[in-house]
Amino acid sequence: MFQYKEIQRTPLEKLGKLGLIKYLTQCISVTHHTTVKGIGDDAAVMRFANKQVVVSTDMLLEGIHFNLAYTPLIHLGYKAITINLSDIYAMNATPNQIIVSVAVSNRFPVEALKTFYEGMMRACKNYNVDLVGGDTSSSNTGLVISVTAIGQADEKDIVYRKGAQVNDLLVVSGDLGGAYLGLQVLERENEVFKVNPNMQPDLVGYEYLIERQLKPEARKDIPELLKELGIKPSAMIDISNGLASEILHLCDQSQLGCRLFEEKIPLDPQVLTTAEMFRINPIIAALNGGEDYELLFTVPLAYHEQIKGHRQLSLIGHMTTKEKGAQLVSQSDSLIPLTAQDWDTFLKKNPTS
Amino acid sequence: MFQYKEIQRTPLEKLGKLGLIKYLTQCISVTHHTTVKGIGDDAAVMRFANKQVVVSTDMLLEGIHFNLAYTPLIHLGYKAITINLSDIYAMNATPNQIIVSVAVSNRFPVEALKTFYEGMMRACKNYNVDLVGGDTSSSNTGLVISVTAIGQADEKDIVYRKGAQVNDLLVVSGDLGGAYLGLQVLERENEVFKVNPNMQPDLVGYEYLIERQLKPEARKDIPELLKELGIKPSAMIDISNGLASEILHLCDQSQLGCRLFEEKIPLDPQVLTTAEMFRINPIIAALNGGEDYELLFTVPLAYHEQIKGHRQLSLIGHMTTKEKGAQLVSQSDSLIPLTAQDWDTFLKKNPTS
Repeated sequence: MFQYKEIQRTPLEKLGKLGLIKYLTQCISVTHHTTVKGIGDDAAVMRFANKQVVVSTDMLLEGIHFNLAYTPLIHLGYKAITINLSDIYAMNATPNQIIVSVAVSNRFPVEALKTFYEGMMRACKNYNVDLVGGDTSSSNTGLVISVTAIGQADEKDIVYRKGAQVNDLLVVSGDLGGAYLGLQVLERENEVFKVNPNMQPDLVGYEYLIERQLKPEARKDIPELLKELGIKPSAMIDISNGLASEILHLCDQSQLGCRLFEEKIPLDPQVLTTAEMFRINPIIAALNGGEDYELLFTVPLAYHEQIKGHRQLSLIGHMTTKEKGAQLVSQSDSLIPLTAQDWDTFLKKNPTS
Repeated sequence: MFQYKEIQRTPLEKLGKLGLIKYLTQCISVTHHTTVKGIGDDAAVMRFANKQVVVSTDMLLEGIHFNLAYTPLIHLGYKAITINLSDIYAMNATPNQIIVSVAVSNRFPVEALKTFYEGMMRACKNYNVDLVGGDTSSSNTGLVISVTAIGQADEKDIVYRKGAQVNDLLVVSGDLGGAYLGLQVLERENEVFKVNPNMQPDLVGYEYLIERQLKPEARKDIPELLKELGIKPSAMIDISNGLASEILHLCDQSQLGCRLFEEKIPLDPQVLTTAEMFRINPIIAALNGGEDYELLFTVPLAYHEQIKGHRQLSLIGHMTTKEKGAQLVSQSDSLIPLTAQDWDTFLKKNPTS
């Protein structure tokens, strides 16, 4: 569906492995003061003085996590970085470095990989992180990407999933369900395209959803905002698997229950209209859709006024004792136990063409 | 060929993703004093005080880097860890933590993954590192493993590839070519097995080579030994792609040439006899075979006597000015320019069945 298929095609064999790595990494320079040594040795070297070091990793596989029929490689590169940075922000830490491993089959021309790296570098620039190392190898099948993000924070600032207290407010940034509905739109247009390759994809009116799916941002601004407001969350997690699953993680690790109010879940107007068109309950998209990469956190009740007033933050519920369970309070005031999606979705997250 | 195929088979779906992660990680505890938080949050957290932090990563793909027809999963788990630790030792640093991402197709039963994790945990125990995080997802094809190793060292102790000086001695630990020949033996037996599945593999007399291929160790002892001897290498690298390729890295990054003496390259007797049987030049196996995970380093000439006397170390050559090039001095005293293997091998490293 997208234009990267039309670019020049230099086979990988022409460059060789070392040539390929040189070509892909020639524009990469390290600028962060915590980076001592980037690409080019057995390992990257960093200095963090007395900070604590925070490390997270994600693996993305073609056909499972992305479909190249409708995912431009420049966005995929960008997304591979931002979804990892999201985990570092969810610790209330600052990401500084990224390490990337890529496995490619020789159906990828050099130019396609270059585009993918450009997307990664754009994210690195926007979030002020250095790409400091990685591994490149071949794959018999599709593209495999593994990204490790390294960040740091003062010990006193780190926020875990486990710190929530009874009566803490449950807060989420931005809005939810968009990435999942963006995926539905892209899947639909891809089906149309497969039947008639001359058909142009009809993406008008879905721009926000598609951007949420293809080029998500990490909520760098939220920890900064909370710092400005003088708020340290008691627990925090990023929303990669859907609101329900993440709330259950906070409850589980904090040994608490919660009340989540259906009517408070933030939904963009495009989510509402598109969900209606697809006959999907937008609340289900928010609860189980995943890939929104918003931050979910708890704060003491005392911060109610400050949270309430901020347009980037939604107060969606509060924590209870464990015995009360993790419950969704529906618009009709009935209690519905929250459940996380599991293996089914895990095994077919992004259906492939 | 191996027994892990006969174990109990519980399908992955039965446990679900969260259940699987719980099952696989239930026996994992963190013990290292630098580990603050292991598995179970958005990121792992570590404290290294004023040490520098060293991070390295490797990706292993089924059909490219390993063939499950003759690779027991317990050894694969062990190897996935040790080859990463090898990179940390090559920086003269100490590994403390490991982060592992695994993607599996549902043809793997839960028990197979458990065995794989047991192999990893055995390596973690032997090398005193904590498994502190990772990612688990599904794969449409084979098993994909990505390991990131995290270590630390005092700034003054870290050894890069670039520090070699003219006349420095070129030294290698252990012996070379074994892993490559082990692979040849396993490939041959696998071919026999495919023709006649009742045939038992004939591995007698190749034990050392097969262990080198299937269950390599990282040379933790070498940095320790060098410290005892009061020697800090001027440059160091681990041998993952063959001696020739690694020497060229040291030359390139140190802006030097070298003389490598063919007769000095350490070869185990099993390498010699097996190479003869396969009609492979054992020197080529050492130069281009790869996967030996020995350490290659340079030291000032002054350490000649100390190095010479140690049975774990072989003095194989010396560094020269860049103009003299990187040359192999053959047994007949002729000079042969060193060249690294490249894309061909890269695209078919471990041929699959």
